Amino acid sequence: MIKVGVVGGTGYTGVELLRLLTGHPEVELTVITSRSEAGRPVADLFPNLRGYTELAFVAPEGGELEGCDLVFFATPNGTAMQMVPGLLEAGVRVIDLAADFRLSNARDWEQWYGMPHSCAELLQQAVYGLTEVNRAAIAGARLVANPGCYPTAVQLGFLPLLEEGLIDVDHLIADAKSGVSGAGRKPATGFLFCEAGENFKAYAVPGHRHLPEIRQGLELAAGQPVGLTFVPHLTPMIRGIHATLYARLRDTERDLQALFEARYGDEQFVDVLPAGSHPETRSVRGANHCRIAVHRPQQGDTVVVLSVIDNLVKGAAGQAIQNMNVMFAIPEKTGIANIALLP
Amino acid sequence: MIKVGVVGGTGYTGVELLRLLTGHPEVELTVITSRSEAGRPVADLFPNLRGYTELAFVAPEGGELEGCDLVFFATPNGTAMQMVPGLLEAGVRVIDLAADFRLSNARDWEQWYGMPHSCAELLQQAVYGLTEVNRAAIAGARLVANPGCYPTAVQLGFLPLLEEGLIDVDHLIADAKSGVSGAGRKPATGFLFCEAGENFKAYAVPGHRHLPEIRQGLELAAGQPVGLTFVPHLTPMIRGIHATLYARLRDTERDLQALFEARYGDEQFVDVLPAGSHPETRSVRGANHCRIAVHRPQQGDTVVVLSVIDNLVKGAAGQAIQNMNVMFAIPEKTGIANIALLP
Amino acid sequence: MIKVGVVGGTGYTGVELLRLLTGHPEVELTVITSRSEAGRPVADLFPNLRGYTELAFVAPEGGELEGCDLVFFATPNGTAMQMVPGLLEAGVRVIDLAADFRLSNARDWEQWYGMPHSCAELLQQAVYGLTEVNRAAIAGARLVANPGCYPTAVQLGFLPLLEEGLIDVDHLIADAKSGVSGAGRKPATGFLFCEAGENFKAYAVPGHRHLPEIRQGLELAAGQPVGLTFVPHLTPMIRGIHATLYARLRDTERDLQALFEARYGDEQFVDVLPAGSHPETRSVRGANHCRIAVHRPQQGDTVVVLSVIDNLVKGAAGQAIQNMNVMFAIPEKTGIANIALLP
Amino acid sequence: MIKVGVVGGTGYTGVELLRLLTGHPEVELTVITSRSEAGRPVADLFPNLRGYTELAFVAPEGGELEGCDLVFFATPNGTAMQMVPGLLEAGVRVIDLAADFRLSNARDWEQWYGMPHSCAELLQQAVYGLTEVNRAAIAGARLVANPGCYPTAVQLGFLPLLEEGLIDVDHLIADAKSGVSGAGRKPATGFLFCEAGENFKAYAVPGHRHLPEIRQGLELAAGQPVGLTFVPHLTPMIRGIHATLYARLRDTERDLQALFEARYGDEQFVDVLPAGSHPETRSVRGANHCRIAVHRPQQGDTVVVLSVIDNLVKGAAGQAIQNMNVMFAIPEKTGIANIALLP
Repeated sequence: MIKVGVVGGTGYTGVELLRLLTGHPEVELTVITSRSEAGRPVADLFPNLRGYTELAFVAPEGGELEGCDLVFFATPNGTAMQMVPGLLEAGVRVIDLAADFRLSNARDWEQWYGMPHSCAELLQQAVYGLTEVNRAAIAGARLVANPGCYPTAVQLGFLPLLEEGLIDVDHLIADAKSGVSGAGRKPATGFLFCEAGENFKAYAVPGHRHLPEIRQGLELAAGQPVGLTFVPHLTPMIRGIHATLYARLRDTERDLQALFEARYGDEQFVDVLPAGSHPETRSVRGANHCRIAVHRPQQGDTVVVLSVIDNLVKGAAGQAIQNMNVMFAIPEKTGIANIALLP
Repeated sequence: MIKVGVVGGTGYTGVELLRLLTGHPEVELTVITSRSEAGRPVADLFPNLRGYTELAFVAPEGGELEGCDLVFFATPNGTAMQMVPGLLEAGVRVIDLAADFRLSNARDWEQWYGMPHSCAELLQQAVYGLTEVNRAAIAGARLVANPGCYPTAVQLGFLPLLEEGLIDVDHLIADAKSGVSGAGRKPATGFLFCEAGENFKAYAVPGHRHLPEIRQGLELAAGQPVGLTFVPHLTPMIRGIHATLYARLRDTERDLQALFEARYGDEQFVDVLPAGSHPETRSVRGANHCRIAVHRPQQGDTVVVLSVIDNLVKGAAGQAIQNMNVMFAIPEKTGIANIALLP
Repeated sequence: MIKVGVVGGTGYTGVELLRLLTGHPEVELTVITSRSEAGRPVADLFPNLRGYTELAFVAPEGGELEGCDLVFFATPNGTAMQMVPGLLEAGVRVIDLAADFRLSNARDWEQWYGMPHSCAELLQQAVYGLTEVNRAAIAGARLVANPGCYPTAVQLGFLPLLEEGLIDVDHLIADAKSGVSGAGRKPATGFLFCEAGENFKAYAVPGHRHLPEIRQGLELAAGQPVGLTFVPHLTPMIRGIHATLYARLRDTERDLQALFEARYGDEQFVDVLPAGSHPETRSVRGANHCRIAVHRPQQGDTVVVLSVIDNLVKGAAGQAIQNMNVMFAIPEKTGIANIALLP
Repeated sequence: MIKVGVVGGTGYTGVELLRLLTGHPEVELTVITSRSEAGRPVADLFPNLRGYTELAFVAPEGGELEGCDLVFFATPNGTAMQMVPGLLEAGVRVIDLAADFRLSNARDWEQWYGMPHSCAELLQQAVYGLTEVNRAAIAGARLVANPGCYPTAVQLGFLPLLEEGLIDVDHLIADAKSGVSGAGRKPATGFLFCEAGENFKAYAVPGHRHLPEIRQGLELAAGQPVGLTFVPHLTPMIRGIHATLYARLRDTERDLQALFEARYGDEQFVDVLPAGSHPETRSVRGANHCRIAVHRPQQGDTVVVLSVIDNLVKGAAGQAIQNMNVMFAIPEKTGIANIALLP
């Protein structure tokens, strides 16, 4: 049994982690911290957990985290970097679901996140936890930077094309749509039911924090700089991301369907749909899958990739557990093999 | 392993059964029939099942059903009664998720369902599958009539009060609200997104088919005839039923909270919330729980019970599997212990 | 032209008032105050108003309000009572859309609203603005207390029965369901899209502030004390209230359909549907109507009334304008005759 | 007063036409036809119209249409072309809200719509009713082809750039998201609440019927052939289209904000938002506006245009009335000046 701690479990990523960890046969969830909710039973905050856990939140200073094999951070950006060095020193492995360790370049990080990085020296050591790309490195990692939700959907969609050098990398377009849970559980006017419901809008078109993260991953795959236009949108549903990706083909002879099927043929959590398909976000609701379809409309030179995930699962908590399984040499789908809830 | 067949798995109850049966460790799902979809892979119709099952729909005449230990009917009303006698004769046990065997009185059934009953003699033999009431009889049953969704939520809420004779049985009120999935997957104008969304309405106030079913159950608990006003409403969400129950107390001295906790203390799927609580439908989304709170506003003589279920789980497929577990002497929560999806 | 001011127009009631006032042919909207948004163009906060108004919010201390013929308060409870005495003294008439003047008994008010009332002497002077009940008094009123949303839907549904003494007044039940906009535009976790969406729950069952307001109105209609159980629920839609009302008939011979049609035959904003109907909240979305149906299920002695309004229109801003029209002797439907938006 | 008839008013475009025509001060709505609903009062089908119209549907053969000044077709594709020649001959002017007369090339039409065109000779005579482009021709038109919803949002967004020759026309991308009402009111499984709710997906990526219509309009603006990738998506809301448009700039020196403001400065229904804005679909809910923002992310050579409309108003019924106003020399915003409903 892996002794697991969770820091900051009061948001949506936190409750999703708890849902999945509680049902994981190899995990003993020993501590969950929250300064604001210390003393409160977890199941009191999240009534879906009633009957499944007796844990209560504790303040993070209690020292229980140091006794864990693995600690997940489901905290706001900037929190994990304060605590991670101490935990690593204590021999605890860490998966950070926030953005603190996602960018390898400290200057980029500080620019996009608007604060100094308190342990920039760990950025090089951290392994970016896109399992389908970095599986081997994750297995040996002490510190995993779990990818963002948009970056997961967008990278998995573009990777096969970039790895094969099939597209013009200067003008990639990622038009992404997210359910509202991506914004978290903090009260904010813009995410009220009456603001986000029955409404659709783009946001952060001038620049979103996931842009440098996506670009970093695409550049690694392409082996060269890429030009990316990334436009996120808010769509009136709770869970799900749909990324619609556009690129210009350098080579229109290649069988793209076969390419994608080959790239992900051994992956348990990436499902390439039959040619002509349109993946739906609900087909992955609550599940750890990414489902992808690839199109070439009117047989032109523009390729369109459709990629869907549940932002809280493959885009956050599920992928974190997938990475944990890899780190601890457990079969990769342990604890995250549940079927999506449909309807 | 229990060899299981499903008749009519193309609706929402069907896909939910498939989701739960696919993950059930004691079940071998051997056949699923659908005349309209014969030949089509199940995962083609329900993309959440991609990667989990290779089954395809077959026509019901193939004879595979007779080789099952248990057959679930997830068919429109009036279908199961055509096939059940033959299956029982072949030694197959049956759980009918439709209404064919729910009323013990054939005349009532024919009046409310508007067709003759083709095997009225089985009505007395069928066991009404409200597990928390009929567990022992279910264990030995050959034919279980799985309760309706509204009847499950309403009966579980009223039972403790009726069994103890605490309320005026002549004027019970059940004001119930259902998500749209209760209406099934058939195309019908009234359940289009643009008709049922951003809208709330009552329906069938003059008389809903679940009325006699609920009344039958309440009368058994009360040991006498009851007067029930049942008003169902359609609420713009996919899953969930919330029943708000009103009755006049004969005895205002009794500790109702203690009564409910005692009645359901040993039940794994009925959760009595702390005094003062308000259960939310999302706390049971995708899970087999019924969560209940009991109130006496302003300490008056009106008791208010709040009872929530997921109509497709405890109100249909989950309870059917709970009954299967009882019938086959498997631990009752096997395969239906998953945590509700929140948010 | 009536010179109109609005205090506190940054919430949903405020924007709805602005939408309706902007299109009202007899109104000159001269000032709108907000301390937090002073200086900001109204159309910047509410983009639906772009092109329709050049007004900007101003701080309330500027003195412009005293120059108005009429001031609407769309403020949190407890604000209007600070400013109303001064405005009345300056000869300004007032319609308060908050609760400050709704209860005639100051002690009740202080108990339910948890603060001292700063001008209790005005409570007797204030006219309760349920137009269909108090039209004559409203016409001459200097201060109108605009009804709450639930109280409007519930009172209009019960009134014909109470006025005729047809029901047992000791055990009235009002099971009411509201869209989320009733909770206002303040950020609060419970009203986030991901908390209130795909979810249904009751709240405030032990006691909701609208209970004494409703009871006061029902008692006036009945001419005697009434016993009322009021259970509000939150339903996942933006606008709309559906009240389902239950009472026991003292007289089952009376033609209830005819009674309701007679009572509201001259009312432009109360629509009694044909017998057997079920009103939908969307049929009044954005419109000032209350639509009502009356049922007697199974011809028993329980009457069920279904009453729907748009909580922001007939339940707030629309009724306020209806009252303004009455106060200024303008045809009652001026400016609020628009058709509901469907779908 | 203009004597107006409507053919086929039982869908969402129909009810929206009725809502707007009923409130239009220059219109006398004399006849509305529907074969399936003949004899039924319109307000019985659409309860929002109760109290506003006494009209009942009549069969289309009655001859009343010939007595109209103007007839709107809100019918499925292929119906108008059967009746329009006769009406034109009778001196009636026609606005077709379906697609029958939108493409000037009959062969294209027949290929995309899968049926022969019965009056191809009228295609050249029909004026494409994008008011902001063809105002003068519309004024004199006998037959107006009202644009599709997607084409309206996409064309208005691209036009300023194409008219000035600022972008590479070979690789235009239109990523469009529509509310579900765009699919109409016909029962179909895919548009049930439980299929379209809490779900997001692309559809018709290989080719959507609006593609040739959009391309035709863009080519007229560009004065040359264009290459367009058009990907429509279904988003879980009732009303609204959000088009996100991408193109590569040939000239990065030009002030795009100024360009858009100049192009639409005189337009009452096209609102160019301030630089840096993100239009929301709810800001036009129920209103005839198109709101547009233009971005150049990271000051690169990709321009991103965000364009929102209400698909049933500016994308259908509202634009039809705007065109009617132009045809009959009425001030253009008569009857369609209402403010969007927010929230």
